[in-house]
Amino acid sequence: MIIVIERTAQKQDIDELKNVLQNENISYRELSGPDYLAFHVFLSNDGEAIVDNLQAYRAVEKIIPLSKPYRKQHAQRTRKPINIRGYDAAKEPFIIAGPCSIESESQLREIAKVVKTSGAHALRGGAFKPRTSPYTFQGMGDKGIHILRKVADEVDLPCVSEILSVNDVELFEKHVDLIQVGARNMQNYDLLKALSKTDKPIILKRGFASTVEEWLLSAEYLLDGGNDNVILCERGIRSFDPSTPHVLDLNGVLLAKTLTNLPIIVDPSHAAGDYRFVTDLSNAAIACGAEGVMVEVHHRPEIAKSDGKQSLKPDKFHDLCQSIQFIYEKNRPQ
Amino acid sequence: MIIVIERTAQKQDIDELKNVLQNENISYRELSGPDYLAFHVFLSNDGEAIVDNLQAYRAVEKIIPLSKPYRKQHAQRTRKPINIRGYDAAKEPFIIAGPCSIESESQLREIAKVVKTSGAHALRGGAFKPRTSPYTFQGMGDKGIHILRKVADEVDLPCVSEILSVNDVELFEKHVDLIQVGARNMQNYDLLKALSKTDKPIILKRGFASTVEEWLLSAEYLLDGGNDNVILCERGIRSFDPSTPHVLDLNGVLLAKTLTNLPIIVDPSHAAGDYRFVTDLSNAAIACGAEGVMVEVHHRPEIAKSDGKQSLKPDKFHDLCQSIQFIYEKNRPQ
Amino acid sequence: MIIVIERTAQKQDIDELKNVLQNENISYRELSGPDYLAFHVFLSNDGEAIVDNLQAYRAVEKIIPLSKPYRKQHAQRTRKPINIRGYDAAKEPFIIAGPCSIESESQLREIAKVVKTSGAHALRGGAFKPRTSPYTFQGMGDKGIHILRKVADEVDLPCVSEILSVNDVELFEKHVDLIQVGARNMQNYDLLKALSKTDKPIILKRGFASTVEEWLLSAEYLLDGGNDNVILCERGIRSFDPSTPHVLDLNGVLLAKTLTNLPIIVDPSHAAGDYRFVTDLSNAAIACGAEGVMVEVHHRPEIAKSDGKQSLKPDKFHDLCQSIQFIYEKNRPQ
Amino acid sequence: MIIVIERTAQKQDIDELKNVLQNENISYRELSGPDYLAFHVFLSNDGEAIVDNLQAYRAVEKIIPLSKPYRKQHAQRTRKPINIRGYDAAKEPFIIAGPCSIESESQLREIAKVVKTSGAHALRGGAFKPRTSPYTFQGMGDKGIHILRKVADEVDLPCVSEILSVNDVELFEKHVDLIQVGARNMQNYDLLKALSKTDKPIILKRGFASTVEEWLLSAEYLLDGGNDNVILCERGIRSFDPSTPHVLDLNGVLLAKTLTNLPIIVDPSHAAGDYRFVTDLSNAAIACGAEGVMVEVHHRPEIAKSDGKQSLKPDKFHDLCQSIQFIYEKNRPQ
Repeated sequence: MIIVIERTAQKQDIDELKNVLQNENISYRELSGPDYLAFHVFLSNDGEAIVDNLQAYRAVEKIIPLSKPYRKQHAQRTRKPINIRGYDAAKEPFIIAGPCSIESESQLREIAKVVKTSGAHALRGGAFKPRTSPYTFQGMGDKGIHILRKVADEVDLPCVSEILSVNDVELFEKHVDLIQVGARNMQNYDLLKALSKTDKPIILKRGFASTVEEWLLSAEYLLDGGNDNVILCERGIRSFDPSTPHVLDLNGVLLAKTLTNLPIIVDPSHAAGDYRFVTDLSNAAIACGAEGVMVEVHHRPEIAKSDGKQSLKPDKFHDLCQSIQFIYEKNRPQ
Repeated sequence: MIIVIERTAQKQDIDELKNVLQNENISYRELSGPDYLAFHVFLSNDGEAIVDNLQAYRAVEKIIPLSKPYRKQHAQRTRKPINIRGYDAAKEPFIIAGPCSIESESQLREIAKVVKTSGAHALRGGAFKPRTSPYTFQGMGDKGIHILRKVADEVDLPCVSEILSVNDVELFEKHVDLIQVGARNMQNYDLLKALSKTDKPIILKRGFASTVEEWLLSAEYLLDGGNDNVILCERGIRSFDPSTPHVLDLNGVLLAKTLTNLPIIVDPSHAAGDYRFVTDLSNAAIACGAEGVMVEVHHRPEIAKSDGKQSLKPDKFHDLCQSIQFIYEKNRPQ
Repeated sequence: MIIVIERTAQKQDIDELKNVLQNENISYRELSGPDYLAFHVFLSNDGEAIVDNLQAYRAVEKIIPLSKPYRKQHAQRTRKPINIRGYDAAKEPFIIAGPCSIESESQLREIAKVVKTSGAHALRGGAFKPRTSPYTFQGMGDKGIHILRKVADEVDLPCVSEILSVNDVELFEKHVDLIQVGARNMQNYDLLKALSKTDKPIILKRGFASTVEEWLLSAEYLLDGGNDNVILCERGIRSFDPSTPHVLDLNGVLLAKTLTNLPIIVDPSHAAGDYRFVTDLSNAAIACGAEGVMVEVHHRPEIAKSDGKQSLKPDKFHDLCQSIQFIYEKNRPQ
Repeated sequence: MIIVIERTAQKQDIDELKNVLQNENISYRELSGPDYLAFHVFLSNDGEAIVDNLQAYRAVEKIIPLSKPYRKQHAQRTRKPINIRGYDAAKEPFIIAGPCSIESESQLREIAKVVKTSGAHALRGGAFKPRTSPYTFQGMGDKGIHILRKVADEVDLPCVSEILSVNDVELFEKHVDLIQVGARNMQNYDLLKALSKTDKPIILKRGFASTVEEWLLSAEYLLDGGNDNVILCERGIRSFDPSTPHVLDLNGVLLAKTLTNLPIIVDPSHAAGDYRFVTDLSNAAIACGAEGVMVEVHHRPEIAKSDGKQSLKPDKFHDLCQSIQFIYEKNRPQ
C-alpha cells in the first residue's frame, strides 16, 4: 500500500510514523517527488488490520491500498458458471421470474405456469417483504414459503425467495433453493455470516448506494464463511435525478466482471421501476455480459400487492425471454 | 393523493382507472389543465395499500402523495426532549462519547473517565462491529458488552452500543441503556420490529444514502411497534466526491425538524472521517438545531482497532464539549 | 399546478395566499384530505413566472407542477428522425466517430479513413477542449477546425466538433456541420441562445449531474430561439462510486424517449472511460432505443493527446459498427 | 505518480510500458507486493501531459497522482485574506447581501439600504440570470448592471453580480466590483480564461456536482491566467434526496481549507432553498471556518421575480449578521 504524507506534516510526525513501521517490523520505502512524500509499505496478504492504525497518525494524509481486498475472488481465475439443475450456461441466459409477492396459492400457480412455459429456470416469489413503510403489505411470511415450495414443485422449477432474518435461515434451508439477500441487507453482516454456513446458492443484490468494492466485500463474507455458491445481482443504483429513482449500473457490471469470477445477473424490474422499460434494460444487461436476469411477472399487475407498476404481463415476459436469448447467443465468445 | 394521467393514455385506459376507483368506492375529482389530466383521490389515513395497485394501471404516469406517510410523528406536536437519567435538555446538548470499539477493560475505563470528566452524558463503545471487510476487526462481541456495562457503572454513565442481530436483543436489553441501530441496518426491518418491542431508547442512525422520508419511516417501524423512545442520528451522507466520502447533511437535519417531533442528534465523527474536522462539524450541527452529538474519543487513536483517524484525543474532546455548550445556549429559544 | 399548504400554516397565512390568487385573477380549487390542504391552481401554458412568487408565501410548503415545462417537445408528436446527408434512419443507427482531439492533419486523415470505411456517418474531432486542468492539452483551436473541414471533405463525411465560446459561433457555422455542446456547457445559456440563432444541427450533451428535465429544458432554449435541429446525447452521469466515475444512464434515455420527440444518441466512450467497455455499452444503448452513438477512435490510443484510455482502435470500432447494426435491426418496430 | 498494473496484464504489455517510459526518459521504480505490481514514476511538476498517454497502455489499470494538480494554491502558504475596501478580515466575516435579481431601481435601493445598515460589506444583485427554463425571468441585463452601479454608489458599498458571457467582461470590468462566476459556469473555461485577464476579484462558485479538486482546478485557470484575486464560494451540492435538493457541503469547505490558501465563503441561500434554514446554515458555515457569506435578501420576498422562497426579510437578515459575528469571533484563532 501507499501512505501519502500530509504536506504540512512536521518532521517529528513523520519520524513517529517511521518508528511505528520499524517497531512493527513493517518494511517500507520512501517515494518522493517534487511536492510530495509517500511510503510504499510491503504488507503480506492479510495486512488490512494495520491500516486502521496507520491512518490515525498525524503525518498521514491518506492510505492507498494496492491489493484487492476481496481475496477469494479473482477475475484471473476461470469464471464460475451458474450451476442450477436444469440450466445450461453454455446455451442460454439464466432467467428467474415470478411475482414480487406471493399473494395466494392460485396467484402463484397461475404465474408459475406461464414463466415456466416461457423458459424461466427458477421461480421467484417474496414471502417476507422489506417495505419502506410499516403500513404497507409485509408479505405472507412462513405460509408464503410453503406455497412457494409447493408450486415450484408442481411446475418443476427451483425457487428463489428473499430472506430478511437470521431466524429464518432454517426455514429457507429447508424449502428454498436459491436464497436472495436484498439490497437493503447487503451489509447485514449478521445475516451474511449465517448464510455463509449453509450450502444453498445465495443471490446477493447490490445495495442501491453501495460501491462495487463494498458489494464484492459482502460476497467475501459468504466465501470466507464457507459458501462459495454466490450469484451477484445488480438492481439499479440511486441517482440524483428523482425522475429516474434508480439507474441500472452497467458500468458496475462491466467493472465487476474484471474483478471477480462470480457470476453476475441483473434485476431489470427494480432497475426500471416501470414495466415499459424492463425488456430494454434486460437486453442491455445481457449485451453487457450479465449472465442472467431476475424479472417480476404478474398476470394482473393492476391488482398485485406490491410492485405492480414494474411487473410484466406474461406475453411481454415471453417476448423478453426470446429477446435476451438472441443477444446472449450473439454475445457469447465462440 | 394526486394521480397524474399519462399524456399518451387512451380513453379506454382512463375509463379503466375510473372504473377501478368507482368499484373500490374511492372518491376522486378530476383536475384538468391546458396539457394535463390528474385526479385528486380522497384516501383515509390508512390508504397506502391502494397506491401499489393504482400505479400499475396503464393510464397512470405517477402518483403524488399529499399525506405524510409517518403518521405517528408530527412536527406540530411538542418536540420530545431527550429523556435520559442525568441529562437536562433545557440546559445542555446531549453528549455521547467513547471509543469506536471496546478493545479491553482498561482501554474503555481510561476513556470513560475522561469523557465523564468533560461532561458526556453517555458512554459509547462498540462490541459488534459492522465492518465492510470480513478480514478486519469484528469486535469483542458479548464480552465487550459485559465490559461496557461494568465500566459504565463505575463512572456512573448510561451506556450506548450498536446492535447487529435480532439474536442479541435480549443481551442488549439486559446490559445496554441506549441501543444504537447503525446506518447499514436502518432498513433492517426485522431488527427494527424486534427493537420496537423493547422499552429501551433506540438511537436510529440515518443510512448514508437514505432519504429523510425513508429515515422517518424506519423510525415509524419502532413507533408503530410500540417503542416511542427514539432518537434520530444523522451521520453524513454519501457524496459524488471521493475526497469527502461523507457529507454531514445539515439540510436534512433542518428539514427533519419540520417533519418530526423526535429528537435529532448528529455523529460528527463518521460525518468527518478525520479528527481535524470533528469539532467544527459538531459546532455546525448544534448551530442547526441538533439536540446532541455522538463523538468517538480515544486516548491513543494511533493504536485504536477501528476509526482511529476520526477519533478525538481527550483534550480536543474537552474543547468540543465547551464549544457546543456555548452555541447551544445561544441557539436555544428563550 | 398543486400548491401544498404547510401543515403548520396559520389561517392568516392561508388567507394571504388566497387573496393573492384572487387579486391576480388566478382560479384555484381547494383539495383537502385527512391531514393536508392543497390548492389546484389553473394556469395557462405560460404560467411559470408566477411560481417563483407563490412559493415564497409563508403558507406554501411546496409547489408541484403538472404541466411539462418543455413546451416545444412532446412525445405524442412524431419522433424527429436524424436528418443528415448520407444517413438513413430507417436502415441504420447514426454513427459519429473520430479522435477525441485533432492532433495533426495526418493523424486525423488516418483515423477519418478508417471510420469512413467502417460505416461512420460523421467525423468527430475536438479543436477546443474543455479540460479540467489548465495544464493539460487545450486543443489546436482554429487551426484544428480548418484541418477538420479539410479532412472531412476528403473522406466526404459531415463533421462534428465541440464549441466552447460564443465568439466561435461564426467559425463553427462556416466550417462545422454538426455543432456539439459539451456536458460542462449544457447550462451555458449564453452559448445556447447564440446557437439557437444558427441553422446548424446541435448535439446537446447531458450534463454529468443534470436531470432529464434540465436537459430537455436546455434543449428548449435552442428550440425556443428558433433552432429545432437538436440531437440529444447521453454520456454518463456522475456516481457515488469512484471506481466507475460515470454510469451510462439508460434509464434516462428510456424516460427521455417518453417525454420528447427529439432524437437521442449516446456517447459510450465518455460513459465507459475505458476502451474495454465501449462496445458493450454501445450495444446496450442501441438496445434501449438510442438512435446512434458517438465514439472516440484512434489508430494509436497510446499516443493520443487526450482520452486515449477510452479510444477504440480501428478494428474494434469496425466490430462495434457491425454489432450495433445487428441490434438496431432487431430493435426497430416493423 | 503511481501506475497500477492491470492484474491480467501480459509480460509483453508490461514491457511495452517500460519501453515507453525509458524512451521518454521518465525514471520509475517498480513496487511489487503479494498480488500487485505498480510503478512509482518520477515526474517534474508539469508532468500532467504524459498521464493521458500512459493510461492508454493496455498494461495500466489506473494512475494515481501524488502531486496536487493546483500548483498555484497551497495550504502551506499564508491564507489570503479577503481584501475589499471597507472590510477587515481580522474583525468580522465578509457579508455580501442583496436581492437575487435586480427588478427596478427602487427595489434595489430599498434593499441596499437595509443590508448596508445591518452590516453587509458588498451589495449583490443579478442582472443576467442563468435560469433552467427559457420561459422564466432572465434578468434586466445591461440596464440592471447600471442600476446596480448607481445604487451601490449611493449606499457606498462595492457591488457583486454574476457574469454569464465573455461578451460582458468589458461591461463588468467597468461597473462591477466583484465578478461572480455561477455554479453552472464553474467549468466554462472560455469565461474563466477571459476573467483571468481582468484585475477584478472573482467569486468562483462551486458547481453543484463538482468535486473539490475540480473546483480548485477551475480557480487555477484564473490564477494561471494572471488573476490571483479569487474567492471560492460553496453553495450546496446535489443530493440523492429530492426533499433537500441541495446539501451545504461543509466537509468540502473544511477539506478545501487544507488544500488552498484562497479565501472561502458560503452561499447559504441557494444551499438552503428555504428562508427558514438560511440563518442556521450561515452559522454552521462560519463555525466551520468559512470566511464569509453571500445572502439573498428581499424586502418583499413574495413578489420577488426569482428565489423569493429562499430570500430573507430585512429583520431576519439583521439577526443573521449579529449571529455570525458572534460565532466568527469565538472561532478565530487568538
